[in-house]
Amino acid sequence: MAGLRVHSVLVTGANRGIGLGLVQHFLGMPNPPQWVFAACRAPTGQRAQELQRLASKHRNLVIIPLEVTDPASIKVAAAQVGEHLGGSGLTLLINNAATAKVNLLDQETLENMTNIYTTNTIGPLLMGQEFLPLLKKAAQGSPGSALSCSRAAIINMSSYAGSITDVYVWEYGQVVSYRCSKAALNMLTKCQSLRYKEDGILCIALHPGWVQTDMGGSGAHKPPLTVDESVQGMLKVLSSLSEKDTGTFLSWEGKVIPW
Amino acid sequence: MAGLRVHSVLVTGANRGIGLGLVQHFLGMPNPPQWVFAACRAPTGQRAQELQRLASKHRNLVIIPLEVTDPASIKVAAAQVGEHLGGSGLTLLINNAATAKVNLLDQETLENMTNIYTTNTIGPLLMGQEFLPLLKKAAQGSPGSALSCSRAAIINMSSYAGSITDVYVWEYGQVVSYRCSKAALNMLTKCQSLRYKEDGILCIALHPGWVQTDMGGSGAHKPPLTVDESVQGMLKVLSSLSEKDTGTFLSWEGKVIPW
Ligand SMILES: NC(=O)c1ccc[n+]([C@@H]2O[C@H](COP(=O)([O-])OP(=O)(O)OC[C@H]3O[C@@H](n4cnc5c(N)ncnc54)[C@H](OP(=O)(O)O)[C@@H]3O)[C@@H](O)[C@H]2O)c1
Ligand SMILES: NC(=O)c1ccc[n+]([C@@H]2O[C@H](COP(=O)([O-])OP(=O)(O)OC[C@H]3O[C@@H](n4cnc5c(N)ncnc54)[C@H](OP(=O)(O)O)[C@@H]3O)[C@@H](O)[C@H]2O)c1
Repeated sequence: MAGLRVHSVLVTGANRGIGLGLVQHFLGMPNPPQWVFAACRAPTGQRAQELQRLASKHRNLVIIPLEVTDPASIKVAAAQVGEHLGGSGLTLLINNAATAKVNLLDQETLENMTNIYTTNTIGPLLMGQEFLPLLKKAAQGSPGSALSCSRAAIINMSSYAGSITDVYVWEYGQVVSYRCSKAALNMLTKCQSLRYKEDGILCIALHPGWVQTDMGGSGAHKPPLTVDESVQGMLKVLSSLSEKDTGTFLSWEGKVIPW
Repeated sequence: MAGLRVHSVLVTGANRGIGLGLVQHFLGMPNPPQWVFAACRAPTGQRAQELQRLASKHRNLVIIPLEVTDPASIKVAAAQVGEHLGGSGLTLLINNAATAKVNLLDQETLENMTNIYTTNTIGPLLMGQEFLPLLKKAAQGSPGSALSCSRAAIINMSSYAGSITDVYVWEYGQVVSYRCSKAALNMLTKCQSLRYKEDGILCIALHPGWVQTDMGGSGAHKPPLTVDESVQGMLKVLSSLSEKDTGTFLSWEGKVIPW
């Protein structure tokens, strides 16, 4: 992980689960980022207390209000982040926020399909568009021209459940709305990698493992994977990424997952 | 094509392009289906004139009003089809209707992403749910237990543009909203194949080729592929499908396309 030197990072859905774990690990690094932006849709609410506590201790942590399904909210967030950064760019955008509803295929509805796609797929697309100027600035300000997470990158938190090839744990409630949203997010990631390469931005889809969070559930996986283990693995993966990895779909252990 | 004997078929988006071509070819078969349901959202409009002309000549052709983004419209359509079929089932559901807007990634919006996903991905999901009883009836009424298009099947018209592996013709306007919707449709197809197998229903995603239609454009492909050539190829593919093909992604020439 020594390799991962990040000037600034923004994590969406940062108030709990894997998002919160990422923030904690960034703050705890030997060379922590100058700026850690923890984006969260209810910064003053009950569920953001741990984030508030962290912010009172770490001067490099900034809580940013953000609803990823709302273009206006994203615009305001990007402006706020830009102000904090002054003239510098944003190194790392981690699109982590997502939602799921455990439904059988027969129970899926227009509404549920729409809601989940909006949060899990359209959100990351809009975030990429709105933060592009800051990411470009980071890429331009960085020495060398090779892609890496220390230069500028978009990390889309996907899921093995979104692998069309494997349809991982189909029996686990089917969750077709979630699977479709993550397959689409994988496609978006590939498209972003093609589009943003010229801007010096690396893009990958990352599977965090089946992790003990509100979404993952407690009996998720045997042996169970903790947020700490998942985040540690993912940060190691991020530190190792280079040009050849852009547009790929990797697990928290660095394995390539089939589309 | 001698192998494809279909008791009944419903095609969505049947008033023009590939959908209309499918209807024409089904009507022209040596053993035409007893029922060809041509679903179309504006059956009395300017764009449905050819369909009206065909219906006046073919007693086995029934035009069904259908807006695939509207659950209520789908419900009414399924009831109408059920009435025509009397006690028998629907052999083939072809989810062909779709929409696209040529946008660069930078130009995509929440609204466009939502509209295209709703038509191209959620529509086929809702159609599968609502027509399931009729498809099951066809499967149960058919001799033998192997899956085939002569027994019961859902054909989702996908696109090579939805292949995450290949991101076919990226340069052609990028169309990220369309690509995401088709990658998600591919995932849906795989999920439908797993869920509906027990009901005796085969499910595949089919790429029609780059075809000269309103969507495909005229200078689409060299050499250009006509609707007739595409439809002929696809019907041959359908006639050849068996159990092992359910859940796959095939081209109009029968080649497996990578997810
Ligand atoms: N846990 C697993 O086993 C697992 C496996 C594979 C992939 N993943 C992926 O990993 C990521 C994190 O998962 P997790 O397990 O940490 O989930 P989680 O515990 O359910 O947390 C989800 C986070 O996303 C936020 N969020 C949801 N909708 C939002 C919206 N519209 N705007 C802004 N924030 C929103 C939530 O905020 P609120 O507190 O305000 O609701 C919360 O912070 C997700 O992308 C998930 O799909 C997780
Ligand atoms: N043409 C190609 O090169 C190509 C390549 C790959 C895949 N495909 C796929 O092949 C299928 C047919 O394409 P095409 O080229 O024939 O397209 P097209 O010429 O644009 O025709 C689209 C059809 O879908 C209908 N439709 C659109 N939205 C609808 C809705 N909400 N409810 C009901 N019907 C709706 C249209 O009806 P209206 O007339 O009322 O608009 C029309 O009948 C699509 O799934 C497309 O994605 C085409």
